[in-house]
Amino acid sequence: MKLALLGCGLLGGSLAAAWRQSGRAAHVTGFDVVPQRAHRALELGIIERAAPTVADAVADADCIVLATPVGSMGSLLSELQRHARNEAVITDVGSTKVEVIAQAQAALGDTFGRFVPAHPIAGGALPGIEHASADLFRGCWVITTPQPQTHADAVGLVETNWAACGANIERMSAHEHDRIFAAVSHLPHLLAFALVHLVASQPDGERKLRFAGAGFRDFTRIAASDPVMWRDIALANRGALSLELAQFRTQLEELQRAVDAADAVALERLFAQASQVRRAQTFRATSNDHDV
Amino acid sequence: MKLALLGCGLLGGSLAAAWRQSGRAAHVTGFDVVPQRAHRALELGIIERAAPTVADAVADADCIVLATPVGSMGSLLSELQRHARNEAVITDVGSTKVEVIAQAQAALGDTFGRFVPAHPIAGGALPGIEHASADLFRGCWVITTPQPQTHADAVGLVETNWAACGANIERMSAHEHDRIFAAVSHLPHLLAFALVHLVASQPDGERKLRFAGAGFRDFTRIAASDPVMWRDIALANRGALSLELAQFRTQLEELQRAVDAADAVALERLFAQASQVRRAQTFRATSNDHDV
Repeated sequence: MKLALLGCGLLGGSLAAAWRQSGRAAHVTGFDVVPQRAHRALELGIIERAAPTVADAVADADCIVLATPVGSMGSLLSELQRHARNEAVITDVGSTKVEVIAQAQAALGDTFGRFVPAHPIAGGALPGIEHASADLFRGCWVITTPQPQTHADAVGLVETNWAACGANIERMSAHEHDRIFAAVSHLPHLLAFALVHLVASQPDGERKLRFAGAGFRDFTRIAASDPVMWRDIALANRGALSLELAQFRTQLEELQRAVDAADAVALERLFAQASQVRRAQTFRATSNDHDV
Repeated sequence: MKLALLGCGLLGGSLAAAWRQSGRAAHVTGFDVVPQRAHRALELGIIERAAPTVADAVADADCIVLATPVGSMGSLLSELQRHARNEAVITDVGSTKVEVIAQAQAALGDTFGRFVPAHPIAGGALPGIEHASADLFRGCWVITTPQPQTHADAVGLVETNWAACGANIERMSAHEHDRIFAAVSHLPHLLAFALVHLVASQPDGERKLRFAGAGFRDFTRIAASDPVMWRDIALANRGALSLELAQFRTQLEELQRAVDAADAVALERLFAQASQVRRAQTFRATSNDHDV
């Protein structure tokens, strides 16, 4: 299978490496709006060819993967409609699904059925093709959100590719996907960015950050993430994210009341429930956990 | 030096192990309100003797360490006033300093000068003496907040003990200490507890938690912390914590407006500033970082 990779970052590079290692992709052509990234992917042996344009990258591809920030997927899909073979299966790795699906429907029209919306729950604190790894998806979830129009063989191809590199597949509706990840991924990113921004903006912020320990380090690790990627995610999923954020603010209002009233019972009850849930929680392996 | 350890948990056990390994403590007697914990410390070779009462533990000690939740320190200090030798140096490892100092002053009266308030910035996600390690403090900060009345030789003894096990000492005022750790430790704990509590309380909470990835895992690691310990910290430092929480809520109000208005510029600006600060941040080593 000839693969066209659009976006040569951590996730796209890892996907190309993983799909090749599992024998599912035989030849990979890469494109990136920043040409150096595609050249670096070539140097690292992750792609066979760095294409100068999207049109060139996808011309003879059997499968095309969108691995760019979700905000750029709409215009890329329009280019694919013009330049990709009609038989080519198109998929993505975006963190939001409802908006990307709407854009694919608008851009691909009659051939929308070849688009398989997907989201691998993997990543690492360190971005970029340099940190790409064929093992990134081993043991991870990959969520697919096929639509009624999506061709069954296209879904089968994409899910088989992912399963071949050790991922666990789960199908769900795009709306459920966006609600889940608003709560357990997008909101935590927003909170981590907000905390670092707040502390750094305070007059004694530098001194405060100097004495931060392991708790702060882990809590804010995701605040080192790419700002453009997360701006796009926040915008693309703003409906679900807005609801989760509003609920969280209500929760903080209650906590503020409990702190101000020195309400030991309310504080202990909330902390104990959270602690019990968190201690019982297990996570799928993610192999790119660097200490940032 | 004969050491009395009050509270045989992760921090107290690690302190005893570290001070012994560095040759600063020759004999350690331990006490815990849960006798099994002191017996476990004995079995693990971290203490030489498990005392049945506080009075017995401190009777002939040269140095007494309070390593219990901060909410219990007031009554412990009153017991020390009755039972400890007048020459004994008393110190603590509490995460808040202003309230503990006030309690020490009330309890110790004329002998308040022998109390050296201290806070090692170390810990681990896994609590309990089982996870104690003599290396826990290597490369970490230890904050001391001596008062005008604190005896210079008492401060010297405690700081020398900490330096001998590889910690970096920083003196500051108790108010500055409490302000700093409200921002970079106590508030993040509150937020992590609040997020896990919120998600777990939602009708689809279990399903949401099932698909949580590495970002959520790191962000909420501190939500597995001991609820009683953190209830006490939130109460003991509620003045500074309340201020930081209120500022954070204002920050979230702004973010809510930006998300709801799809304000790409505001979102990217905040994310980019936070990301830049966080990527530039370095942390002192902490050796007890388990994957919870």
